[in-house]
Amino acid sequence: MTTTIGVDLGATKLLAGTVDVDGEVGDRVKRATPIEGPEAVADAIAEMVAELGGADRLGVGTPGYVDDEGSVGGVPNMVGWDPPVPLAQLVRAATGVNAVAVDNDVNVGALGEVAHGAAAGHDDVLCVFMGTGVGGGVVLDGRLRRGPHGLAGEIGHLIVRDGGRRCGCGGRGHVEAYGGRAGMEAEARRRHAAGESTALVEIAGDARMKSSVFAKALDKRDAMAVELIDEAIEAVGAAIASAVMLLDLSIVVVGGGVADRLGPELVARVGAAAAQRLVVGLAVPVVPSRLGDDAGIIGAARLVGS
Amino acid sequence: MTTTIGVDLGATKLLAGTVDVDGEVGDRVKRATPIEGPEAVADAIAEMVAELGGADRLGVGTPGYVDDEGSVGGVPNMVGWDPPVPLAQLVRAATGVNAVAVDNDVNVGALGEVAHGAAAGHDDVLCVFMGTGVGGGVVLDGRLRRGPHGLAGEIGHLIVRDGGRRCGCGGRGHVEAYGGRAGMEAEARRRHAAGESTALVEIAGDARMKSSVFAKALDKRDAMAVELIDEAIEAVGAAIASAVMLLDLSIVVVGGGVADRLGPELVARVGAAAAQRLVVGLAVPVVPSRLGDDAGIIGAARLVGS
Repeated sequence: MTTTIGVDLGATKLLAGTVDVDGEVGDRVKRATPIEGPEAVADAIAEMVAELGGADRLGVGTPGYVDDEGSVGGVPNMVGWDPPVPLAQLVRAATGVNAVAVDNDVNVGALGEVAHGAAAGHDDVLCVFMGTGVGGGVVLDGRLRRGPHGLAGEIGHLIVRDGGRRCGCGGRGHVEAYGGRAGMEAEARRRHAAGESTALVEIAGDARMKSSVFAKALDKRDAMAVELIDEAIEAVGAAIASAVMLLDLSIVVVGGGVADRLGPELVARVGAAAAQRLVVGLAVPVVPSRLGDDAGIIGAARLVGS
Repeated sequence: MTTTIGVDLGATKLLAGTVDVDGEVGDRVKRATPIEGPEAVADAIAEMVAELGGADRLGVGTPGYVDDEGSVGGVPNMVGWDPPVPLAQLVRAATGVNAVAVDNDVNVGALGEVAHGAAAGHDDVLCVFMGTGVGGGVVLDGRLRRGPHGLAGEIGHLIVRDGGRRCGCGGRGHVEAYGGRAGMEAEARRRHAAGESTALVEIAGDARMKSSVFAKALDKRDAMAVELIDEAIEAVGAAIASAVMLLDLSIVVVGGGVADRLGPELVARVGAAAAQRLVVGLAVPVVPSRLGDDAGIIGAARLVGS
């Protein structure tokens, strides 16, 4: 029997697990992501694979852009990752496993949801992940859309309010400026500095304004939190509507830290915002992601066929 | 030798021509589109095919949505076309040609530009046609994107200013509300009725505000015309940027009556507006369409392989 392991490489956590053909995760291992650079990460992956009893095939999801050879570029949050990092090659060398595939974590998340999650059985899918930013993956005719430069899927940088709020990338009016946690935090801090009071800053203090901070402020019916979340919902809904108009899709999956924390009600409201903006006849279900914390492992395993 | 004919069916004009494997048009015939309904159109096509010496394969571009069987739905400007119209079947019966394919005129225009026009040699292409509305076709990995409901390519209904100007479809802030001739005319008439003066209304009077009216008003440096065209350029540029972010494309073609009339300078300005909005690394050439009036014939022939 072929053993497949999926590896979910994050800036702080490294997860690995065996995944069967039905997308079920068997054994799991977890450790902090080594901070000594790519070779140390590859060595840690090799140790985890050994702990899991070895593998015939290995899929890895990573932050950053990944080229056809499994090299990784542009990983802002990981020290010592000077692009391009030949991650697939390093992992092959460290593990002795030949069948290694590497892809971007957002693509991997989308693949998992399509293969074994909320979009199972669908061939034309948009996955939107609302986290620190807004990421996405597009599956068309059953295949992940990568594009000639491997840069497809940037739903977070769709323009929904041309000339509007400044995005982390420097652009204006992008979905991510409204729908990403960092964009919402920047706006809250800007308004707070300008004299508005909000429970968001009271709860977070100087620390990062995590999803849980937004959840708590919403529970208190904090006016600014309500407004920022309303704007996030409208922006993500508008981007989904735009994507559906352009591509004609059969389902949209919404996941990510913010969506998971605020729950199915948030996703339902995003779906309503999208539906309101769609030409009649193009109605599309908008559903919560289903794989949760295992999405990265399951999607990574999918890269090599599980 | 196999003879291929492309037919360009418009609301007012019916064009047909022989097309060789290099996309070169040989003989052409033209007549007014019969107004007695689909059977009369099919009969006219049969007569034109006979005039051209007969055909082995026949491609037809038509307004409206076209399903997998070549049936046409939703043709607002053609009398007696109660959807679905089995156009492919009617044309087969009238002409005796078996190899008949029918597709939407915008899709056909995009296919022509990719096969033999401005996007020749590219596999990942967006074609935007600025006319009465804003239409488009998307080619991904060398294949026209149709989508599970055959509704893909509606670049005109991408949301660029959420909550903004009302579109003909009822939505708000769509590209077409700013970048389509009808949307610009509606806005000019609204502002004129509210007391603003403009050469646009002086030139057009009560008649339709054609592309030539905008061209003349721009020549006179009419303030409202300049502003409306600026907004059109910004909106189409934003939509192109959104599409490139989502799909990662290698070229964008801009054509259609408005773009053709206002010329390469307009297309260059649309390209600059898109470039300004793109994340670094995703620069994409934005070029004028090349097939002009023959685009419909050449693209239609492409449906059956020329």
